[in-house]
Amino acid sequence: MSHAAVCVMSGGMDSAVCAFIAKSKGYEIIALHFDYQQRTMEKERQCFEKLCKDLQVAKKVVINADFIAQIGGNSLTDTSLPIRENGLHHQEIPNSYVPYRNGVFLSIAAAVAQKEQAHDIFIGVVQEDSSGYPDCTQDFIDKINVAIQSGTSEKITIHAPLLHLTKAEIVQQAIRFRVPLEHTWSCYQNQQTPCGVCDSCLLRKKGFQLACATDPIYGEFSGSLKGL
Amino acid sequence: MSHAAVCVMSGGMDSAVCAFIAKSKGYEIIALHFDYQQRTMEKERQCFEKLCKDLQVAKKVVINADFIAQIGGNSLTDTSLPIRENGLHHQEIPNSYVPYRNGVFLSIAAAVAQKEQAHDIFIGVVQEDSSGYPDCTQDFIDKINVAIQSGTSEKITIHAPLLHLTKAEIVQQAIRFRVPLEHTWSCYQNQQTPCGVCDSCLLRKKGFQLACATDPIYGEFSGSLKGL
Repeated sequence: MSHAAVCVMSGGMDSAVCAFIAKSKGYEIIALHFDYQQRTMEKERQCFEKLCKDLQVAKKVVINADFIAQIGGNSLTDTSLPIRENGLHHQEIPNSYVPYRNGVFLSIAAAVAQKEQAHDIFIGVVQEDSSGYPDCTQDFIDKINVAIQSGTSEKITIHAPLLHLTKAEIVQQAIRFRVPLEHTWSCYQNQQTPCGVCDSCLLRKKGFQLACATDPIYGEFSGSLKGL
Repeated sequence: MSHAAVCVMSGGMDSAVCAFIAKSKGYEIIALHFDYQQRTMEKERQCFEKLCKDLQVAKKVVINADFIAQIGGNSLTDTSLPIRENGLHHQEIPNSYVPYRNGVFLSIAAAVAQKEQAHDIFIGVVQEDSSGYPDCTQDFIDKINVAIQSGTSEKITIHAPLLHLTKAEIVQQAIRFRVPLEHTWSCYQNQQTPCGVCDSCLLRKKGFQLACATDPIYGEFSGSLKGL
């Protein structure tokens, strides 16, 4: 595919907005999703499938990345570790950090891109709101792009259009590009409705509040949530 | 583990020599192996297990990397594509090339290293004999190391001690470090004995010939092979 882009899509808001930005630039979308026994695997997968329809993707690639749970050490896959609540003000890297996850995802995205002869990868990494994850920075994206260009025979460019946006700006982009946000899931907990207190929920809530917008996800997943 | 090294080990000769070099430097070995539905998966896995005993490894991590077969495009996992025979003189990248395989392996090795708090990764990449794979070069190793250092919270160094060795020099290292080469498998074909004509067999044969040594693998796997 000559003008195709591999879009890493979790089923969350950020990666959905990122994929719609790619679509708006005229790319055919190769949607790349990772299942890794994360707590919310089924919900994220359902959202991914809905978004693929919304985006009319050219190709879907769903990768079994169970090795991430096998490597362990994070609360997204290890249910014996608690999900941090109301902890956004803490300075340390939270236990939801999956070691080098974006590095692994981008490497597999590069392999898919090379196979499909795509020259572009889109990933919805956000630096400011990333809870201090070291693989969510401009520095890392720049350096892994240089490495991927060296290690593949295609000239591949990584696009991270959300890297320097705040969550409020991402919500604004979602509205601008008509992203069906009711088809996204951000909460770290596997519950009927978003928990509202994990880092991911707090960031999303703050984003909608600052953008003066209403999050449709709470309509989709049984009504309303206190504090919005 | 404070003085541990993650060693990527396929079950082949190069990565075995590399792991024994790490051992000789005093590292505790975290042995990392990838199953990816490659034709010779079972043979490589058996060799890996034997080598782990030989090395008295501190930890074994076997990763299901079936996604490599799923991404496809290479003759190691796609049995509808022929393995090239007697083709070492050809200039183009052979179809045994797995897109960005070392990039993917090193990214997962970095995730394991970070989880285990190891600061070193050993990989048996060989530039000269790599049939032109772009992810087998000093340039790539340098750049992926820079990227991994940016994207992890550990200071991780990648060691590729075979990078600039010829196959003959690797055989000499194997003899020096008493690597049990009868516990390694290099052939791309899944047969009782090495085929002797795939790129990997040809390189290994050439290495033993130039090192004036006898390859014990042909004793292990039913006797002898013509041309040695």
